[in-house]
Parts: sequence; C-alpha cells; structure tokens
Amino acid sequence: MTGADGPDVAGLRRRLTAFAAARGWEPYHTPKNLAAALSVEASELVEIFQWLTPEESARVMDTEETAHRVRDEVADVLAYLLQFCKVLDIDPLAALSEKIDRNETRFPAP
Amino acid sequence: MTGADGPDVAGLRRRLTAFAAARGWEPYHTPKNLAAALSVEASELVEIFQWLTPEESARVMDTEETAHRVRDEVADVLAYLLQFCKVLDIDPLAALSEKIDRNETRFPAP
Amino acid sequence: MTGADGPDVAGLRRRLTAFAAARGWEPYHTPKNLAAALSVEASELVEIFQWLTPEESARVMDTEETAHRVRDEVADVLAYLLQFCKVLDIDPLAALSEKIDRNETRFPAP
Amino acid sequence: MTGADGPDVAGLRRRLTAFAAARGWEPYHTPKNLAAALSVEASELVEIFQWLTPEESARVMDTEETAHRVRDEVADVLAYLLQFCKVLDIDPLAALSEKIDRNETRFPAP
Repeated sequence: MTGADGPDVAGLRRRLTAFAAARGWEPYHTPKNLAAALSVEASELVEIFQWLTPEESARVMDTEETAHRVRDEVADVLAYLLQFCKVLDIDPLAALSEKIDRNETRFPAP
Repeated sequence: MTGADGPDVAGLRRRLTAFAAARGWEPYHTPKNLAAALSVEASELVEIFQWLTPEESARVMDTEETAHRVRDEVADVLAYLLQFCKVLDIDPLAALSEKIDRNETRFPAP
Repeated sequence: MTGADGPDVAGLRRRLTAFAAARGWEPYHTPKNLAAALSVEASELVEIFQWLTPEESARVMDTEETAHRVRDEVADVLAYLLQFCKVLDIDPLAALSEKIDRNETRFPAP
Repeated sequence: MTGADGPDVAGLRRRLTAFAAARGWEPYHTPKNLAAALSVEASELVEIFQWLTPEESARVMDTEETAHRVRDEVADVLAYLLQFCKVLDIDPLAALSEKIDRNETRFPAP
C-alpha cells in the first residue's frame, strides 16, 4: 500500500474537487449522477473479466495492457466514490470502519 | 475527512483481509467474483436514487434511515474495491493519483 | 418458448403501460430512470451468481427457491427493457434483428 | 411494435443460438457469464444518460448518432437476456406475464 509519503485519500479528494471545479463540471455532479457513473465504471471492471475462467481472472495483471486497464478502472471507481462522498459529506473510511464493526457482530468468526 | 487518528486505507484493508480469512471466504474471492460483487453494491447505491429527481437526490442525507442506507452501500463498495485490489496487489490510491495526472494532460483546464 | 397461445411482447408491453398509468408512475418513467432501473435489476440477477463456480451457476434452476428468484429477476429486466423502449418508441425485436445482421458481417463464422 | 411479419422472440433466439454455435462460443456462455454480460450492456445504456437532465434524456432519439447507440445497447441487452434464458430453459415472456399477475395483487391500483 501507499506508504507515508504516497497520496492519501484527503489529498486525492481535494485534487478531484479542484479538477471538476476548473472544468465547470459541478452542476453535473449530483449524487444521482455520480452513483450512476460509479456503477458504470464498476461494470467496465466486470467487462474485463466477463468471459474469463476464475483461474484466468487471477492472472490479469500478467499482461501489461490488461493490467493497465484494470488499474485504470480501479482509479475511475475510486474517483467517483470519492466525489459521491464529497457532495454528500460522507467519510468513506469511517463508514467502512463502522460497517466492519457491525459485521463482526453479525457474522461471528467460527 | 478522517483525520490523523481515524481509520486509514491500509488498516481497513488489513481488517477486511483478516475478516475474510477467519471465515474461510478466500476461495470465493477471485478477482472476477470481487469485481461482480463491487458492481452489485454500486447498483444498490444507484437503487436508492433511481426514482428521485436531481434535487431530491441532493437531500438523501436529511432522513436518518436513507442516510444510513447510503453510508452502508458506500462502505460495501469500498470494501469490495479494497479486497479486489488486495488480491491483485494494486494500490488504489497510487492508481488514482496517476489517473488524475493523465487526465490533467488529456483534459486541460480552460 | 411461449407458443402461439402464450403472452407476446406487444401484449406484455400494453399490460406494463396500463399498470404504470393506473398507479400514476409515468412521471418517474424517464428514459434515464428506466435505464438505471434496468441496470439495477440486471445486477440483482448477477448477485444470485456472484459467489458460484461456473459449474454451480449451471445448476441454479435445480432448487425451486433459487429458480423462482432467477425467473423473477428475468421478468424485472424484461419489464424495464420494454418500458424503456416504450417511452423512446424503440422496437427491441427489430433492433436486435438488425444487430444480428450487422454482427454476421462483422464477425464472419469460420 | 413489430407486426405479424416482423422478427419474433423465438426466431431471434434461434438466430442467437446458431450465431454462438458457429463461432464456438458456447463454453463461455455459462449462466454466470451471461448474467455479467447482461449487466455490462445495461450499464452501457446507463452511460449514455449519466450526465443528462431528465428532460435531455427524453430527447436522446432526436440525434441520429445517439439514437443508433441507444438501439444498439437495447439490442445487446435483449441478446444477452435471451441467451441467458436459453441456457437455463426459461421462458422470459411467461416469467414476465406471471410477474405482472403477482404485481397486480401486491400493488392494487387505487
């Protein structure tokens, strides 16, 4: 994972916000539109895998071209997730931390 | 955003990995399956908004029940994104940072 | 397939239109919302299969409960597809027929 | 809608089956993969609408290029839906007819 000197979530969110503002894209960034865009990008990730066997799917990073496509779609999914969270003032890391807490209660480890 | 003392991405990823391992879920966590699960959760987020006007969509956090649903789906999307990245050894923050770099060249601000 | 006496596409479309009209749902049925609803239902179909192996996925109709869920999601996908086509005055059967014609040229059989 | 002389669902399904068989695609057409492909195509339809207002979304057929894209995605969604139903021996028209019957009971018209 990104170490202490790498990009962090708060910094990426600021860059995305500035990027959209500089291009006048804010009116398009309703929560409804950003949720749709997020799901479209998630489907583009699925598309890479749709005809692969489970075994082939584990080797997608072995080919540089496919590896690039996968990283690119991961970036798009994360970008829309952060922008969605920005317009609704949601902290995604806190939301996930609380969800893991709840799941530890709901699905006790054997 | 989560401050210096809040949960961070690396820590959340470790908790998710431990959670899945303790329940024997790793065999199900192929990249193909995790990409599908990510897209299913993204669609559950879309479902909250599907019949709302753009204006209504901006007010989803005003009702506690809907706000909870939205945060819950955000958590699920992020959880599957981090688990997908874990099994393919992708750093999502670095991937997004590089994508923003490329987009700044592709779409110059006016 | 449904034989000469079974339901046909035109008849189903009429029933769906009357159903929505009787409940005052037309204002919600913009093409944008119906496309989103269609993708949400398609994801609910994916959800049934997301953790299954390819072999298990071929046996989903063996269990009555799962078979019912699958048929139910198929119905929902088709319902939104027909309603989407209705509001935009698209003939889905003609669209598919033309697409197969084009694909026969684009991907010649060996 | 397609009249008495137009393409019908059973005929389109036969053409799709022959098309896939002639190209040796059957091993890829597991129910799991076809459900994923269906959801990917549904998302490509959503993508056309993602930044449009509800009003703009109602006018997508006014531009020939966009109209073609919309019809093309409709064809893809229907193609994968029919192929999915084929491999699981589901009659989609009967499934929808039964679903409308159930919905008329569940959601009585006012």
